[in-house]
Amino acid sequence: MNKKILEEGNSIEIQFDKRGGLVPVIVQDVDSMEIVMQGWCNKLALETTLELGKATFWSTSRNELWTKGMTSGDYLEIVEILTDCDQDSLLYKVKMVGSGACHTKNASGTARKSCFYRKIENDQLKNMDK
Amino acid sequence: MNKKILEEGNSIEIQFDKRGGLVPVIVQDVDSMEIVMQGWCNKLALETTLELGKATFWSTSRNELWTKGMTSGDYLEIVEILTDCDQDSLLYKVKMVGSGACHTKNASGTARKSCFYRKIENDQLKNMDK
Repeated sequence: MNKKILEEGNSIEIQFDKRGGLVPVIVQDVDSMEIVMQGWCNKLALETTLELGKATFWSTSRNELWTKGMTSGDYLEIVEILTDCDQDSLLYKVKMVGSGACHTKNASGTARKSCFYRKIENDQLKNMDK
Repeated sequence: MNKKILEEGNSIEIQFDKRGGLVPVIVQDVDSMEIVMQGWCNKLALETTLELGKATFWSTSRNELWTKGMTSGDYLEIVEILTDCDQDSLLYKVKMVGSGACHTKNASGTARKSCFYRKIENDQLKNMDK
């Protein structure tokens, strides 16, 4: 792929093959601008996301297509999909419907909004639950 | 790895092996909350980031350690490093020093701040340069 076309062109050329079929997907809540999760996407998952308008991933643990919220109702509604300069990464900007994006729960038993609830501090992870 | 320890523990157990040695790193500007790039990190790159306080990656194209800004001076100063529930993704929250995080330039010849300058629209990429 010509670098100029890849970086400056308007043709969608997501480099799935370069990354073994899967590219990382960053999911950002458009309201708070918070990163709520990071998933993976293959060609089918991207096509399904565009078709449904709901964030869809390829689950690397279950090895299957996964539209987040399909069972729980907690969809991530797509507002915009961005790609990066060399088209090997995706950014889903979403409106969050229902409760958190994370499958884990805080000490109060509430679903965490974001999977990124711990930070590295003094060689340990520090929980930042509010 | 016990799931409870991985998800709720305070021990740093980044799952490099699960992802072939490399986990995705999301880079977010703490001031604008904008996603400026997505890189890759192995154990050495994370250790170097923690040591220098500057965003460091494993370059998958050059296959070498890469501290962003080491040649250009455009460092990404680390404010916080977060990891996700299953510790196979990293989020560098950074202060941007110098010009943009992207190696590409807009039509005016200015380095783009973020690598995510195009969005998917009507089966094409639309440039969002300001």
